[in-house]
Amino acid sequence: MVAANGTSTKAAWLDGLQDDLHLLEGKMLEASSMGHETLDGAVQMIIKAGGKRLRPAITFLVGRLFRANFSPILSVGASVELLHTATLVHDDLIDGAAERRGVPTLHSKMSMGVTVLTGDFLFAKAAALAAEANSVPVVKLFADTLVKICQGEILQARTRWVLPDYDVYIERIYGKTAALFEAAAVSAALIGDATDAQVAAMARYGRNLGLAFQIVDDALDFVSTSENLGKPAGNDMRQGILNLPAMYYVEQGYISDADLLERLESKDETEKLVREMRASGMVEQSLEVAQSYARKAADALNILPGGEVLKALDAVTSYAVARTI
Amino acid sequence: MVAANGTSTKAAWLDGLQDDLHLLEGKMLEASSMGHETLDGAVQMIIKAGGKRLRPAITFLVGRLFRANFSPILSVGASVELLHTATLVHDDLIDGAAERRGVPTLHSKMSMGVTVLTGDFLFAKAAALAAEANSVPVVKLFADTLVKICQGEILQARTRWVLPDYDVYIERIYGKTAALFEAAAVSAALIGDATDAQVAAMARYGRNLGLAFQIVDDALDFVSTSENLGKPAGNDMRQGILNLPAMYYVEQGYISDADLLERLESKDETEKLVREMRASGMVEQSLEVAQSYARKAADALNILPGGEVLKALDAVTSYAVARTI
Repeated sequence: MVAANGTSTKAAWLDGLQDDLHLLEGKMLEASSMGHETLDGAVQMIIKAGGKRLRPAITFLVGRLFRANFSPILSVGASVELLHTATLVHDDLIDGAAERRGVPTLHSKMSMGVTVLTGDFLFAKAAALAAEANSVPVVKLFADTLVKICQGEILQARTRWVLPDYDVYIERIYGKTAALFEAAAVSAALIGDATDAQVAAMARYGRNLGLAFQIVDDALDFVSTSENLGKPAGNDMRQGILNLPAMYYVEQGYISDADLLERLESKDETEKLVREMRASGMVEQSLEVAQSYARKAADALNILPGGEVLKALDAVTSYAVARTI
Repeated sequence: MVAANGTSTKAAWLDGLQDDLHLLEGKMLEASSMGHETLDGAVQMIIKAGGKRLRPAITFLVGRLFRANFSPILSVGASVELLHTATLVHDDLIDGAAERRGVPTLHSKMSMGVTVLTGDFLFAKAAALAAEANSVPVVKLFADTLVKICQGEILQARTRWVLPDYDVYIERIYGKTAALFEAAAVSAALIGDATDAQVAAMARYGRNLGLAFQIVDDALDFVSTSENLGKPAGNDMRQGILNLPAMYYVEQGYISDADLLERLESKDETEKLVREMRASGMVEQSLEVAQSYARKAADALNILPGGEVLKALDAVTSYAVARTI
C-alpha cells in the first residue's frame, strides 16, 4: 500500500466518514481478539496501522447511497477490511516481508505455524462478519470473492519470473485487488435498495476503481524509495512479479523478454534496469492506463442520481489514481 | 486419521451411502479445480486418498433423517469435507509432514507459498459450497465452525510442550475436531425439517461423537507403528502435543510433569517412555473415556424416532470408538 502524500491524507471524501471508520476499527479489533495477549497485541498493531480503509469507505458510501441500514453495513465493511488484513498476513509470510506500514509483520514475531493459523482465523472471522448481514447473496459474494483473491494470488505465485501478457496481468490484479473493491461496493448495494441495474453499476465502479488502484500501486513501486516505503524501488520486479511498466518496456522494444529476465539475475544490473525504466516513461504510460480505468469507474456512477455521496464516490476514484510519492 | 482394520472397512452403515459418497467426491474434485495441471493433480490425489468420509456420512444420514433435499445436503457435505481437507493442508505444512494416508503432502511437492494459498483456496471453496445451500443459519454455522477450528489449532500450537488439564484438552479437541462433526450433523438438520429440540440433539450427537473420535485417535497414536500409519508410536507426544494418555500417566503418579517433559528432550528416553506408557494401561483408560462420550452421542439420538437411519447413526458412533490397529 502506497501512503498518500500530506495533502491527500486530508481528502475531503474522508471527512464525513470519520465516525464510521472509528466504529469499523472497534468492530475489527473486537472480532479479531483470540484471548491471547501476545498474539492479540500483534494483530491489533496490524489492524491499527491499517492504511486508508479505502475498501470499507466504499462500503459505507454505497450503503448511504442506497439507504441501507447501518448495522449490516458496518459488519460487511469490517468483513471486507478483515479479509484484506488476512490476505496481508499470509502474503507477508510468503514474501518474507519484515514490515508493513512501519509495523512488524506477524511472522517476524511468531512462528510460521501461528502466522498461517492466525491468517486462517482472520478469514474465518471475516466470513462470520459477512454472515451477520443475514443475506445469502452477500455471503455468496464474499465466498466467491475469497475464491477470486486466492486464484489471483496463486496465479501471481505461479507466474513469477514470467512476463505476463495484458490479459493475464489484468486477471491477476483483478483477483488480487479489484475483486474485493467490487465486493465492497456490491455488498452495500445489495443490503440497500439498489435495483439490479444499480448493483451492476456498483460492480463496474468497484472493479474499475480496484484495477486503477492496483495499476497505480504497481507503477509507483518503480518510483518509491526505501525511506518512504520501507522497500527499494522496483521491489515487485526484484521478486519476479512483473507488472505493467516492465510489460511496456519489453513491448516497446527497449529490451527483449529474455534479456530482462537475465539482467534481473544480477543485483547491479537490476539497479541499472530500474533506473533505465524510470527514465523511459513507462511509469507514466502505466499511470495513463490507470486513469482510463478510473474514467470507467466514474462513468459507472453516471446512471445514478447525483448528490453529495456520489461526489464522494467520485472523489475516492480521483484519490486512488492521484496518489504520488 | 487412523485407518480402520479390514473388518470395519466394510461397515454396514457405509453400504447405503456409497452412491452419495461417490457424488461427494465428484463435487469436491470439481470445486477444487484451479485450472493448473500440477497443482490440481496434487490436490486431487489428496482428495481421492480421503479416508472414511465420516463427516459427510453424518451429513447424509442426518439429511435423510429429517427429509432434507439432497442437493443442498450434497453441497454442505462437500463443504464439510473440503474444509477438513483445507485444515489438513495447512496442518501438514505446519508439522512438516511428508505423507498423509500414503500420499505425499502438498508442501512436500510445492513451495510454502503455494501450499498456504491452496489451503486458503480450499477454505474459500468450502465457504462457497456452504453458501450453495441458500441458508443464512447454515452459512453462519460454517463461519463459526471455521473460527472454532482455527482457535483449536492455535490453542494446540500455543500449548505445545505443556501438559494440559482436562478442560483445556477437551477445548482443544473440540475446536480441532468435534466442532466440525457437530456442524456436519447440525447443518443437515437445519436444511431438513428438524425442530429446535432435534437440532440441539444433533449438536450433542455430533459434538460427543467428534470428541470420542479424537480421543480414540489420540490414544491409538501410542499403539500405532511406523508400518501401518507411516509415523512412529507416540508421534503427537514427540511433537510436544500432550494428550489424554500422557495426562493420566502424570495424574496417576507414574511420573512428574517436569520429568515427563525432560525425558522428551532425549530420543532414547522418549522411546522408553512410549513403551512404559503403553504398558501402564493409560491407553485403555483413555479409550474408556472415549466410550463415555460415545454413549453420550448415542443418548442424544434417543429423542428421535427409531428406524434404519438412526441405526446407521448409532453404528457410526460404534465404528468411531471401535477402531483399532
